[in-house]
Amino acid sequence: MPTFPFSAIVAQDEMKLALLIAAVDSSIGGVLVFGDRGTGKSTAIRALAALLPPMRAVVGCPYSCDPEGPADSCPHCATTQGLRKAYRKPVPVVDLPLGATEDRVVGALDLERALALGEKAFEPGLLARANRGFLYIDEVNLLEDHLVDLLLDVAASGVNTVEREGLSLRHPAKFVLVGSGNPEEGELRPQLLDRFGLACEVGTPKDVPTRIAVVRARDAYERDPQGFCDAHIKDEKRIQKKITAARERLSSVTVPDSALESAARLCLALGTDGLRGELTLMRTARALAALDGAGAVSDDHIRRVAPSCLRHRLRRNPLDESGSTARVARAVDEMFAG
Amino acid sequence: MPTFPFSAIVAQDEMKLALLIAAVDSSIGGVLVFGDRGTGKSTAIRALAALLPPMRAVVGCPYSCDPEGPADSCPHCATTQGLRKAYRKPVPVVDLPLGATEDRVVGALDLERALALGEKAFEPGLLARANRGFLYIDEVNLLEDHLVDLLLDVAASGVNTVEREGLSLRHPAKFVLVGSGNPEEGELRPQLLDRFGLACEVGTPKDVPTRIAVVRARDAYERDPQGFCDAHIKDEKRIQKKITAARERLSSVTVPDSALESAARLCLALGTDGLRGELTLMRTARALAALDGAGAVSDDHIRRVAPSCLRHRLRRNPLDESGSTARVARAVDEMFAG
Amino acid sequence: MPTFPFSAIVAQDEMKLALLIAAVDSSIGGVLVFGDRGTGKSTAIRALAALLPPMRAVVGCPYSCDPEGPADSCPHCATTQGLRKAYRKPVPVVDLPLGATEDRVVGALDLERALALGEKAFEPGLLARANRGFLYIDEVNLLEDHLVDLLLDVAASGVNTVEREGLSLRHPAKFVLVGSGNPEEGELRPQLLDRFGLACEVGTPKDVPTRIAVVRARDAYERDPQGFCDAHIKDEKRIQKKITAARERLSSVTVPDSALESAARLCLALGTDGLRGELTLMRTARALAALDGAGAVSDDHIRRVAPSCLRHRLRRNPLDESGSTARVARAVDEMFAG
Amino acid sequence: MPTFPFSAIVAQDEMKLALLIAAVDSSIGGVLVFGDRGTGKSTAIRALAALLPPMRAVVGCPYSCDPEGPADSCPHCATTQGLRKAYRKPVPVVDLPLGATEDRVVGALDLERALALGEKAFEPGLLARANRGFLYIDEVNLLEDHLVDLLLDVAASGVNTVEREGLSLRHPAKFVLVGSGNPEEGELRPQLLDRFGLACEVGTPKDVPTRIAVVRARDAYERDPQGFCDAHIKDEKRIQKKITAARERLSSVTVPDSALESAARLCLALGTDGLRGELTLMRTARALAALDGAGAVSDDHIRRVAPSCLRHRLRRNPLDESGSTARVARAVDEMFAG
Amino acid sequence: MPTFPFSAIVAQDEMKLALLIAAVDSSIGGVLVFGDRGTGKSTAIRALAALLPPMRAVVGCPYSCDPEGPADSCPHCATTQGLRKAYRKPVPVVDLPLGATEDRVVGALDLERALALGEKAFEPGLLARANRGFLYIDEVNLLEDHLVDLLLDVAASGVNTVEREGLSLRHPAKFVLVGSGNPEEGELRPQLLDRFGLACEVGTPKDVPTRIAVVRARDAYERDPQGFCDAHIKDEKRIQKKITAARERLSSVTVPDSALESAARLCLALGTDGLRGELTLMRTARALAALDGAGAVSDDHIRRVAPSCLRHRLRRNPLDESGSTARVARAVDEMFAG
Amino acid sequence: MPTFPFSAIVAQDEMKLALLIAAVDSSIGGVLVFGDRGTGKSTAIRALAALLPPMRAVVGCPYSCDPEGPADSCPHCATTQGLRKAYRKPVPVVDLPLGATEDRVVGALDLERALALGEKAFEPGLLARANRGFLYIDEVNLLEDHLVDLLLDVAASGVNTVEREGLSLRHPAKFVLVGSGNPEEGELRPQLLDRFGLACEVGTPKDVPTRIAVVRARDAYERDPQGFCDAHIKDEKRIQKKITAARERLSSVTVPDSALESAARLCLALGTDGLRGELTLMRTARALAALDGAGAVSDDHIRRVAPSCLRHRLRRNPLDESGSTARVARAVDEMFAG
Repeated sequence: MPTFPFSAIVAQDEMKLALLIAAVDSSIGGVLVFGDRGTGKSTAIRALAALLPPMRAVVGCPYSCDPEGPADSCPHCATTQGLRKAYRKPVPVVDLPLGATEDRVVGALDLERALALGEKAFEPGLLARANRGFLYIDEVNLLEDHLVDLLLDVAASGVNTVEREGLSLRHPAKFVLVGSGNPEEGELRPQLLDRFGLACEVGTPKDVPTRIAVVRARDAYERDPQGFCDAHIKDEKRIQKKITAARERLSSVTVPDSALESAARLCLALGTDGLRGELTLMRTARALAALDGAGAVSDDHIRRVAPSCLRHRLRRNPLDESGSTARVARAVDEMFAG
Repeated sequence: MPTFPFSAIVAQDEMKLALLIAAVDSSIGGVLVFGDRGTGKSTAIRALAALLPPMRAVVGCPYSCDPEGPADSCPHCATTQGLRKAYRKPVPVVDLPLGATEDRVVGALDLERALALGEKAFEPGLLARANRGFLYIDEVNLLEDHLVDLLLDVAASGVNTVEREGLSLRHPAKFVLVGSGNPEEGELRPQLLDRFGLACEVGTPKDVPTRIAVVRARDAYERDPQGFCDAHIKDEKRIQKKITAARERLSSVTVPDSALESAARLCLALGTDGLRGELTLMRTARALAALDGAGAVSDDHIRRVAPSCLRHRLRRNPLDESGSTARVARAVDEMFAG
Repeated sequence: MPTFPFSAIVAQDEMKLALLIAAVDSSIGGVLVFGDRGTGKSTAIRALAALLPPMRAVVGCPYSCDPEGPADSCPHCATTQGLRKAYRKPVPVVDLPLGATEDRVVGALDLERALALGEKAFEPGLLARANRGFLYIDEVNLLEDHLVDLLLDVAASGVNTVEREGLSLRHPAKFVLVGSGNPEEGELRPQLLDRFGLACEVGTPKDVPTRIAVVRARDAYERDPQGFCDAHIKDEKRIQKKITAARERLSSVTVPDSALESAARLCLALGTDGLRGELTLMRTARALAALDGAGAVSDDHIRRVAPSCLRHRLRRNPLDESGSTARVARAVDEMFAG
Repeated sequence: MPTFPFSAIVAQDEMKLALLIAAVDSSIGGVLVFGDRGTGKSTAIRALAALLPPMRAVVGCPYSCDPEGPADSCPHCATTQGLRKAYRKPVPVVDLPLGATEDRVVGALDLERALALGEKAFEPGLLARANRGFLYIDEVNLLEDHLVDLLLDVAASGVNTVEREGLSLRHPAKFVLVGSGNPEEGELRPQLLDRFGLACEVGTPKDVPTRIAVVRARDAYERDPQGFCDAHIKDEKRIQKKITAARERLSSVTVPDSALESAARLCLALGTDGLRGELTLMRTARALAALDGAGAVSDDHIRRVAPSCLRHRLRRNPLDESGSTARVARAVDEMFAG
Repeated sequence: MPTFPFSAIVAQDEMKLALLIAAVDSSIGGVLVFGDRGTGKSTAIRALAALLPPMRAVVGCPYSCDPEGPADSCPHCATTQGLRKAYRKPVPVVDLPLGATEDRVVGALDLERALALGEKAFEPGLLARANRGFLYIDEVNLLEDHLVDLLLDVAASGVNTVEREGLSLRHPAKFVLVGSGNPEEGELRPQLLDRFGLACEVGTPKDVPTRIAVVRARDAYERDPQGFCDAHIKDEKRIQKKITAARERLSSVTVPDSALESAARLCLALGTDGLRGELTLMRTARALAALDGAGAVSDDHIRRVAPSCLRHRLRRNPLDESGSTARVARAVDEMFAG
Repeated sequence: MPTFPFSAIVAQDEMKLALLIAAVDSSIGGVLVFGDRGTGKSTAIRALAALLPPMRAVVGCPYSCDPEGPADSCPHCATTQGLRKAYRKPVPVVDLPLGATEDRVVGALDLERALALGEKAFEPGLLARANRGFLYIDEVNLLEDHLVDLLLDVAASGVNTVEREGLSLRHPAKFVLVGSGNPEEGELRPQLLDRFGLACEVGTPKDVPTRIAVVRARDAYERDPQGFCDAHIKDEKRIQKKITAARERLSSVTVPDSALESAARLCLALGTDGLRGELTLMRTARALAALDGAGAVSDDHIRRVAPSCLRHRLRRNPLDESGSTARVARAVDEMFAG
């Protein structure tokens, strides 16, 4: 069954932009999507991955390394230089199924070989499979903290370090971590929140026509998936091109001091801890500029990405009961009004 | 011992209709039955399964795939194309026995083969056995959340994804999940409730003649099962035909915009989260129309299924202490009165 | 050492009657005995089992199937039709010893054969041994809920369904479950209570002569078990005959509508949930009628068994602080007085 | 190092009498000793066992059966009839060491044979070793309830029933259970208390000369164990004879109705549950009469053993704050005064 | 690196005396040292052990038995009589490292031999290694109660009884148990406190010159360990001789009745439970007399050791808020003033 | 990718000095860094290790012993004297990854060899790898206490003592322990705090230019790591030389009595427990003097290191709500003003 097209997703613009930005610059870090269930988060990620151009990978490499430049940390490619063949495969989207055990996530001792040959071989896990793609966790706030922490560590470094069962190795695991969460069911610790690059909110549309549009689209797709997808093929191609162009343009986009100063002043005004807020603002604005086709980051770029970059980094302010989105918006308005 | 006939079940009309609808369109999602113990929930499911026409299945396929079109995800049928033989088997009803371990539900490493042959083979679990049938969980509210979640995930996707003990595979597991629960013994999390398609309530009849009828029927059946069933054979056939006809008619039933608008307005009025309420209303009304032999969904269909579709999706309203069934009824009345 | 004779048990008439009724119709469900420790509950069950006529069983069948008609679910007898030999064995009384693990109760993988032959054979547990006899649990209220639930499930269905350790089988396990409990030490959940067929109360006699009689009997038995038993042999034979006769007569005892109506009205008056109360009243009164040699159930039979059938099915009534036995008695009086 | 002599124990008369009585009639049940640490409880039991005449045991029997009449339940002696040799061994005193696991107490699968020969053999545990002797548990109130329960079950029946690890067997385990406890550190459940036959209290002597006597005796024994024991040999012999004579006389001591009535009235006055109190009073008074050389139990015997037999069976009386020893004493006084 | 010399320890006189006394008479029981961290407790024990004369041990005996008289309970020496060779080894000081598992403390099944030879051999643990030396537990109050209890049991009896994993043996384990604790971090149960022979307090010196002396000594030792030790060799020899002389003299020191009476009256005045207080006072005063070269215990000896012997045996007195050291001092003053 | 240069770290002077001091004298003990996440703690440690001169290590030694003088406790080098070859390797920085199990930290039984050869070999863990380098624990306050304790024990003694799984060995593990913590997420126990040598605080810079400098540096490094590092090579060499010189000079720096007295008076004024504060002050001031090129410790050295040495050793003072840094500063001011 073909994937639901990204361009057929009704509304949810903030989430769609955040995913596009993460597709352009994966160093921005994970994307956290807050909101009601049944608002199409999982669909959106699959849709985005499906429209990305297939990637070239080394034949036999369990981490799907790029033949042009395998990861430093790849234990497979380190031993196969000059002998590597390539093939094309779709960008992976890996789901962390409920109840997946840590050994399946991180990888584990290959028991089959251990028992049969008496040797300690590594059996790669979900992190290996997610390399160069997306790792999606539904209800990340229900996951145990230490597993979220581990996933964020790996996502940040692009490397999975395994120290267990007598195994001791590292392998590439560079992916965009997308976590969905429902803020009503227990929150993430501030320390974990802060490590997600972007955070966006999705909600159920409140107007009847949009709701009907969503239900109709869903029903049309389920009754005739292929026909539905064919009808959106042109829009999909357009988005694909936009992403490819932005990736190429990214390294040449400049960040003027004025933009950095805006970022710093915004973070100071909001009292975010550390400098992750500023680093993310800079990178995200740069990726947005690249998507826009701009040569330099402007205050407008900063302004547009500020909510996604900062709303999850605010400290609770007991004297200000407005939500974090409103507080970011107010700070942005005050600063750029001045 | 032959199964107690569906047509001999006294009263409990809402539950019986919900089961019929799930039998017509299994994509509606699980059915949750709230109410006192000893009100014949388990009997009703077994009865319904027993009157469905036996299904054709691929010989040797542990998932009982349909020879006409095996599931995409079937690891067995993927390798046997052109070589498949068929046989007939009754529609399965699988019970989740108390204390069944997760490995028996999901499937597990086949230890026998692992030890004997040193190879990692998969031993299918209860989810495999339930494919194309029913999975019944008594007292679903006493099950651990993560297991309910897992079962709902599988029921929603029709696919069981296994990532454990070094195994990594998917297999078809399309079934109607029926859970019974007693609201007095700890509730399900709203997130879980929302994922059940339908929710109905059963109760002990309060009038003496009905009670005597139930007890007499039960006693008659226990003393002479075969004779009792023979006496109901005609009614059973009639229901079977009705289901078969509705299944065939389903794809041609249309859903006019006005019905979708009613559904959307009803959900907005009740403040349900996400769009699952609307999607379920549309599908359930369509299945009811198909059972009725109607060509299109009408407001009346929406009206009749609204309680089963929505009562478990309401947020607790501290200002309105009436039960959720009453709140749905009131909203229906207000809307269709207008 | 011969068993203490049933007929030598001093006082405790309600318990003795409940056990006799369960011996006549095991489909009535388990018997729950509330009361002080040291009041001879265990002794009574052993005594009853010892006076029942020995049963004929299939040689080699681990479930002791009846050669005249082995259970449908017997995996042993299913393969030995026509080759079965019979022998006589006493009616089993199986104790659930403290700390018995679930695998010993339900049965488990036969490790010896698994290790030696590499095959997965089933090693039957206590439920297998209890088939066609009694299963006694001391302090059932101290057992874990899930184990009680499991035992009640098996007792209700007469079949033990095993889904564990890669085993998947069913075998007959039809027995009278007798649980003793001390209401002062944590209660059973209402859901569990409701699943016991009968509940009776035992207490320490309060008059000196009865107490001396009990102590003397106990001492006499301990000092000369054989002599004591010989002195009671005639009484034992008489009770044995009464049970045998009642079993034969049972299926011909009729239940008039008036008796069913009395049962229904009694349950409605007491507000019991579901219809288990009525079904049990009907069956218990029928068994009592059979013991009495009556051809039909009368209001008097309903009246005599009402406390045992209903006292454990009442909801707690905060406005009525009298015990449940008193409430049943009052309801019986009011109804039959009218 | 020779054991500290029983006759050299200073003070603690109630405990010494309770142990003598248990040595005469082990069916009286366990002895519970409440009181401060460091008051010589462990010493007293060892001392008593050491002065009992050595017992004759079957060579090779892991349960040390009596060659004159091995236990019915002995799996070893059941197969060796006619081939049994005897030897003499001291009466065993088995300590339940802290942290002893249930498998070592009950016995377990003999892993050595299971691994080497692939057969399931039983390796007897501490209960086997305690057969015909004493089992001592220090701080019984710190033991887990289920283990205490198990020990009391075994002590009461004289048989250890093993249902674990695929093992299913019974063996003789008749012993006097002696538990020490400090009432200040968490109490035993009333259900467990009630199952101990006797309960006595020990305390630190409060007068200086007795204290010096204890310390001197202890020091003298530690400095020259053999010399100290030699000095007490005559007293030891005297006590040994007294026990042997009482054991022989026991079965001929009569219990007149008047004594039984006193016992029953005493228990009714104190409101003890069940009839264990009366049975124990009867047996303990009979053993005391045997030790006294009397032919029949008198009220005086009842009177002397009442505190040890009853003080642990009283319900807490919120209106009477005096300790249970005082309450028993008062009831005894009132009754025998009348 | 040579051990820090005992004689170079600045201040902390009470702890040093307690350790000397334990070295003279190990039957006094463990020493508990309360106080701040970083006050040299571990150093003091190592220092004391290092100055004791090396001990002669049986070659090959895992318990280092004395060739002159191996322990009764030694399973090794029991089979080697007449064949034993001796060697000299330093008095052992065994640390209980954090996280040491019970099997390493008590000893365990030797898995290597079990797997290779299929026989159950015992692998001695830390208790075996501590025989005839010192066992040091840092932060004994953080250890689990049952482990402390076990260690005290072994220390008291000098024998380690192992009942686990199918092993059943005893071996000598006579050692001075030294536990350090910080009273601010959770206290030991009174029952455990009472089983330590001596308890002393250490603190940080409060005057500047002493503090500088400690820091200088520590620094001097760390910069030139050998030179520092050489400078103290004469003092070390002097203490060694004093201990050796006291050990020889110990058995001839007499304890007059007047001293025992003082001890008893002191304990009665302070309300200590049991007689451990008096026994310890007697033994400790005797060891002190031996160190002093006195022929008999005097009131002065009692007086000097009373705080170490009794301060940990007092019950909490809600009316007297002064610390236990002050309460002992006051009682001593009142008694000997009288 | 080359490491970020130490000299390119913007601000955070206290942390940088603490790390330099620990690099000069590792006996000072671990360094605890408190503060916000994202303030470059991990970067700083890696940077420092990278600029240290590579160390010479014994080929084949799993603990990387120094060929000039292997550790006393090295089980490898103990058997290879005279046969040792050397090689150069960078100073190790070992991360304790989240979820690392105790066996990987401490080392464990080498299962591969155990299964294949049946012998108990040791497989070194992270502590072995950290020998002679740095061990970094992010969020040390989230680690279990017993693991922190164990790490501090090893860091203090320089030796890892392994008593588990039947293994019993010691190996060198001398490293600088660096722990980062966020005081808002649960604090360390005072006992653990006290065992860290130094504690420093880091924070997010509050002025815009510094913030921009940090972000720019980070971005420059990420875009062109090699170019960025080349630009700092001279500064790196300068720091390397400073450390090497200080290490050589360290043993000749004198500590006058006046400095020790200042240290003692400061600790008394602040009421720190034990003498660890003074010992650390003396050593840290000496290392600082060595870095400064001074021949003796002066009051000024004491003054500069006092906050890092003492702020984590203060008791909470309920009457003084100012932070510990302020309290140390005030005490320093008062003392040196006098």
